[in-house]
Amino acid sequence: MSGAATYTDWIAVDWGTTRLRAWAMGGDGSLRAEATSDDGMGGLARDAFEPALLRLIEPWLGAQPMPVLACGMVGSRQGWAEVPYAAAPCAPGGLQPTPTPTNDARLRVFIMPGVSQARPADVMRGEETQIAGFLAEEPGFDGVLCLPGTHTKWVQISAGEIVSFQTFMTGEMFQLLAEKSVLRHGVAKGDLDAEAFTEAISDTLSKPEHLARRLFAIRAQAVLDGLTPEAARGRLSGTLIGAELAAAKPYWLGQSIVVIGAPRLSAHYAAALESQGLTARLKDGGPLTRAGLHRAYATISETTS
Amino acid sequence: MSGAATYTDWIAVDWGTTRLRAWAMGGDGSLRAEATSDDGMGGLARDAFEPALLRLIEPWLGAQPMPVLACGMVGSRQGWAEVPYAAAPCAPGGLQPTPTPTNDARLRVFIMPGVSQARPADVMRGEETQIAGFLAEEPGFDGVLCLPGTHTKWVQISAGEIVSFQTFMTGEMFQLLAEKSVLRHGVAKGDLDAEAFTEAISDTLSKPEHLARRLFAIRAQAVLDGLTPEAARGRLSGTLIGAELAAAKPYWLGQSIVVIGAPRLSAHYAAALESQGLTARLKDGGPLTRAGLHRAYATISETTS
Repeated sequence: MSGAATYTDWIAVDWGTTRLRAWAMGGDGSLRAEATSDDGMGGLARDAFEPALLRLIEPWLGAQPMPVLACGMVGSRQGWAEVPYAAAPCAPGGLQPTPTPTNDARLRVFIMPGVSQARPADVMRGEETQIAGFLAEEPGFDGVLCLPGTHTKWVQISAGEIVSFQTFMTGEMFQLLAEKSVLRHGVAKGDLDAEAFTEAISDTLSKPEHLARRLFAIRAQAVLDGLTPEAARGRLSGTLIGAELAAAKPYWLGQSIVVIGAPRLSAHYAAALESQGLTARLKDGGPLTRAGLHRAYATISETTS
Repeated sequence: MSGAATYTDWIAVDWGTTRLRAWAMGGDGSLRAEATSDDGMGGLARDAFEPALLRLIEPWLGAQPMPVLACGMVGSRQGWAEVPYAAAPCAPGGLQPTPTPTNDARLRVFIMPGVSQARPADVMRGEETQIAGFLAEEPGFDGVLCLPGTHTKWVQISAGEIVSFQTFMTGEMFQLLAEKSVLRHGVAKGDLDAEAFTEAISDTLSKPEHLARRLFAIRAQAVLDGLTPEAARGRLSGTLIGAELAAAKPYWLGQSIVVIGAPRLSAHYAAALESQGLTARLKDGGPLTRAGLHRAYATISETTS
């Protein structure tokens, strides 16, 4: 199969709990097209994964079998096929994708393993691929990666390996509190007030144990003092990220930090770290996912060509 | 109107965000009947309150106007009629209910005010009535009340007054995390494991800033180590109540504590306090609400008879 004659050489897939993202890729790792749907792992029964994938990528398929490399919750127990975790410490760049049988002969699907840690018990699925992509760019990196999201990860990297990591439910708590709790009446949907955010970071870092009290105070100040929805959103975000920073302090204190994720959320983390005197570098998560999957694509191309 | 000839002398109502509870009462404060519905304040438009109340209490009404004394979120901005807060410090036993106009001439509705605190900003609606009921029984009480619920209150009482109070979103966080977050897959619906609960209380009290990490660890241990759903429920409850105790320490340390609320939840708080060497007394919340409303009924009977 000649790369020059084929529009899509392989397909990169980031398949999380709520979203399915696919990218048509060239053999050199270049991006040629992209597509997204709401067919996240969370809403799919086991036999619904292949049809959901086909709905999204069918325009990119031809007569030849198409390699599809997928990472994320698609490899979990509730996913398309359970792919066992690799145990940390481990090199994310060396993780081997697992072939997954399909009904449609045009597909050759491979799913990346996640990474687990025994003590303290922790797991990741998807972030290991972004980290592999990051380490492909910066193989000599020694320091800490912060990957904010629904379940934010702090990861210590040394000598090309994930040495240890910790997960925080900050993103999911933010979403539940902003959208489902009594706070929903007074929290803005979009922008947050930057001053309220950094003030909440600082307050919460100094007394992190006051979390549940501070949360209700957002409601009380809205009722009594007319706290604006933007300030309430800033307070909520700053309170939760501040509590996370208090717990993750051993990870970031005096370290070189790179924040990997969606640009807007990453900027909040960078602002929070900056308020503590740290300068973090920001990297967009999407390109790193593709770079990590491209590394895995190279290994399967070698073994099958 | 002679009390002896009438089955119901007045009606006590506890009208919260999610539930409506009504009790048919004798003039002496005795309970004669009760009824409950899901017509909580949260689901009702302003003109839907009177019909919802009538649906529940119509069997208790006669030809004479019936005094109805209500407390809780029914008096909030989103309620039937907004009744201003009384500012703490204040004596809950002296709070005056506000008459609320009705369309049905058989009703004479009165709504209790809530209590607010300026610094730190905080509010309560409903608990002040339970506290009034408690102080009617124990007028000389000096110490701390803990009222667990969706929004748990810690209240310092002295000389018959609410001196100060703090609200924690513990109950609402527990419900959101147990039912709506990734933890829902592994958290039992009913009983919790008592050992996992007290261990989590102790862990969280010693490092309260680790909350968001500990929460995800419940998920990770379920995936990796087969943590049972009952142990997961114990860990979740213990982690959140432990974080609350860490923040509320100035309230309970070396104090005489009374826990007022639903018996099952109150027992969890008592167990948590016991693990810290404190013996708390337990009081069921329902009878205290009725006692508090009975005190208010006495004031309106005086002014109108």
